[in-house]
Amino acid sequence: MSHLLHIDSSVRGDVSVSRRLTARSADRWRSAHPGATVTYRDLGTDPIPHLDAATGLARMVTAQKRSAAQDVSFALSAELVDEIKQATTVLLGLPLYNFGPPSTVKATVDHLIATGLSIDTETHTGLLRDTDFIVLASRGGGYGPGTPREGWDHAQTWLTHALSVTGLQPRFITAELTTADANPKMAHLKPLAAESLNKALAAIDQLWTADEDEDAA
Amino acid sequence: MSHLLHIDSSVRGDVSVSRRLTARSADRWRSAHPGATVTYRDLGTDPIPHLDAATGLARMVTAQKRSAAQDVSFALSAELVDEIKQATTVLLGLPLYNFGPPSTVKATVDHLIATGLSIDTETHTGLLRDTDFIVLASRGGGYGPGTPREGWDHAQTWLTHALSVTGLQPRFITAELTTADANPKMAHLKPLAAESLNKALAAIDQLWTADEDEDAA
Repeated sequence: MSHLLHIDSSVRGDVSVSRRLTARSADRWRSAHPGATVTYRDLGTDPIPHLDAATGLARMVTAQKRSAAQDVSFALSAELVDEIKQATTVLLGLPLYNFGPPSTVKATVDHLIATGLSIDTETHTGLLRDTDFIVLASRGGGYGPGTPREGWDHAQTWLTHALSVTGLQPRFITAELTTADANPKMAHLKPLAAESLNKALAAIDQLWTADEDEDAA
Repeated sequence: MSHLLHIDSSVRGDVSVSRRLTARSADRWRSAHPGATVTYRDLGTDPIPHLDAATGLARMVTAQKRSAAQDVSFALSAELVDEIKQATTVLLGLPLYNFGPPSTVKATVDHLIATGLSIDTETHTGLLRDTDFIVLASRGGGYGPGTPREGWDHAQTWLTHALSVTGLQPRFITAELTTADANPKMAHLKPLAAESLNKALAAIDQLWTADEDEDAA
């Protein structure tokens, strides 16, 4: 049975490009999976708490040794991991803030990585490999090969490495130069920005076809 | 007048290696700057809040357009930037969690990067270039050249890029393989771990000498 988990993380509300991309993706997914169910989580309005001194080790100690605060934190980890296990597909909106992921996305991943939940206790292999994880990414500038800030997008490279221990293998659809429209200094980049956005939208529209639909296969 | 800002971010309390390194650094700094003052901030016990939908744009809009929640968030940015401006030296403890910085460090940097506070409104140059920013980093595994996880430390590369817009130029002292002592599978790496820690401690002891002390110069 197909189930979608749709996660947004932008703090920019209606003007967010990543939210626009996840919304379109969710729409296309629904069209390809009539009657299937969707769970929505908004890290922008409901952030996952930081790991902190009171809760951070919840995922490193045995149940018997957990404090009350650690019990609460571990329960949230279990809830987040279960949401992913229940989903056949995850959509994550991932804007780039100050060359990294939103701190809410980091906190979420920190909760997701937990031996006994997302990593097998005995074999240490990832337990989430059955879920397709699609990232709809946006970034205000240009980070492509040959640009001055090539290699400055630390969100995507980090996310792939971090999630690998859970078995999740994110694939990315990215729209970049998203601030070109609003920034007069980037006016000359508007055509490139439009091209990047159009490519992302086209890639989204190709995500689910009858052939690729696991229910139709 | 010399002033030190000492920031910790580990969630591991007394067993934290990064806290051990910042404590030793602060001790050495005090010895080299008798009578000078120190401010301490603990992101492990008092995390900086995430940018979220209510507060995230506080640093992108004019004062007149800020909501009450954005006013609070902007005031915290101003406080954090001022702490750095007041300091001649910053020590930041930076553990590596799931191949990235603690989310509290990301949230702090998101607050620090603000036009009008840390970036000049007219010239867009960084305003924090007078502060020496030293990072005491720890990481559980090995990430050196030729190791399987070379390039997986996204905390250090990200931090350098993110802070560059403020003029801060972090320099790093790193102890790695810090979990070798506790992890039986890493027993063979204990000598390398000890070597890494000893190198970090020696580097700390070389940080402030009479010649390098700005008050003595």
